[in-house]
Amino acid sequence: MTKQELIDQIKSKKSFLCVGLDTDITKIPDHLLDDEDPIFSFNKAIVEATADLSVAYKPNIAFYESYGVKGWESLRKTWEILPKDCFSIADAKRGDIGNTSKMYAQAFFNPQSSGLGFDSITIAPYMGEDSVTPFLDFQGKWAIVLALTSNQGSLDFQNFQNTDGKQLFEEVIDKVNTWGTSENLMYVVGATRGEAFLKIREHAPDHFLLVPGVGAQGGSLADVCKYGMNKDCGLLVNSTRGIIYASKGKDFAERAREEAIALQQEMQQQLEIHGVI
Amino acid sequence: MTKQELIDQIKSKKSFLCVGLDTDITKIPDHLLDDEDPIFSFNKAIVEATADLSVAYKPNIAFYESYGVKGWESLRKTWEILPKDCFSIADAKRGDIGNTSKMYAQAFFNPQSSGLGFDSITIAPYMGEDSVTPFLDFQGKWAIVLALTSNQGSLDFQNFQNTDGKQLFEEVIDKVNTWGTSENLMYVVGATRGEAFLKIREHAPDHFLLVPGVGAQGGSLADVCKYGMNKDCGLLVNSTRGIIYASKGKDFAERAREEAIALQQEMQQQLEIHGVI
Repeated sequence: MTKQELIDQIKSKKSFLCVGLDTDITKIPDHLLDDEDPIFSFNKAIVEATADLSVAYKPNIAFYESYGVKGWESLRKTWEILPKDCFSIADAKRGDIGNTSKMYAQAFFNPQSSGLGFDSITIAPYMGEDSVTPFLDFQGKWAIVLALTSNQGSLDFQNFQNTDGKQLFEEVIDKVNTWGTSENLMYVVGATRGEAFLKIREHAPDHFLLVPGVGAQGGSLADVCKYGMNKDCGLLVNSTRGIIYASKGKDFAERAREEAIALQQEMQQQLEIHGVI
Repeated sequence: MTKQELIDQIKSKKSFLCVGLDTDITKIPDHLLDDEDPIFSFNKAIVEATADLSVAYKPNIAFYESYGVKGWESLRKTWEILPKDCFSIADAKRGDIGNTSKMYAQAFFNPQSSGLGFDSITIAPYMGEDSVTPFLDFQGKWAIVLALTSNQGSLDFQNFQNTDGKQLFEEVIDKVNTWGTSENLMYVVGATRGEAFLKIREHAPDHFLLVPGVGAQGGSLADVCKYGMNKDCGLLVNSTRGIIYASKGKDFAERAREEAIALQQEMQQQLEIHGVI
């Protein structure tokens, strides 16, 4: 998917919602557990209930991998039913030396090789340039690089500061910017630190940012938009638990839809306030 | 596996060789390609040919993942035939927020969940404490955290330096040290920078180090031992291409064994020089 196609979709759906598919068998409704593949059944219902409200889906690969071969089969089937107009994100946090990152790119971008053909993958930048660029070599695909995450542990290394007062996450953005463009690179920036978006936008004014941490993790959508939205929107805000686990009953998909509608309406308001639509 | 069991094995085999299983279907002998699972056939032959010479095996997960469901099945079968006296390493470079790292730990440590029960996994530290500690919660399992890697891109961020002249990889070791012990934590340190082991040992005198980069990537075994070996050996030196791709003919397993013997003999000499045996 191109950047312009993503922007067009945001404007037409009046939404920049990404739905996280962190599907945990212990948290899905009991009545699905007798299905042949309960995780896939759950995902299918969630996707069908939210497809007109969200612009992106983000399966969290760990949740599938934890069930081994069977989990990978659930992931493959889930990828197949993701709406083709939506941006798909393999939330995998991969990254290794060049020849190995190339294999990870095959795993998530090349359906002939792996059965999966996501639009994008999340990347951990610790190993540097040759760990990131193999993902950028795939035409039409995106690398979404960790910059400033929303978890407690983000304070351990991402704020490490050099003699010029520059923090590691800033150095990451500045260097990674030179390996690609805003047409094939995004950054992960956690919603839990609204004002941090000011600094992020100094380094990456035009890039899309993937933003976890709104809702369950405590981030404010209004703050994220105030400090982080640009003329193209430039944000994909993820919500997982608030949507997919809104109910553990037979009404889980309807309740997921209600939560997605509420978020879409807030997002529409923010897009209007900031003049994107 | 405990640290003492690993040390005992090193002393008894007079080897600290780790064989990397980065098994690429385009590089294995043609005569295996008609097998039902060529990757597994190849791994089985390599493991059988080297089991008495190596103390650890390290499948590189990307190479399996690139074939999707089928690749995960090859990985599962490979894990099953790894010798139980050898230390097994899932070279996966994982790491995410706490609840997600917990799922990755299930994926690689819990055979009831995933079909895989490796002794250890490699971890990228960028997301900090809650991304690492879920792996340490598994009794008898190890986290092997990236410190200073052997690739060109390692220079991009791992040497980022703070006002005290401390580099990021040093900060990583110092902080990660406080989350576990030398009984459940190791570090990845590339062989391509022999003298860097001096600095690493200032921060982690007792920890085992997983060392890629000897051979194909140009690192010197003697230098690694000179600067990095401790009284327990404290090193697992990985070799991949030099061993597993020593021949593309029908003699691939014998040639792999010859290369492993040559390395084991060099290693025995180093263990004697440094008084470990």
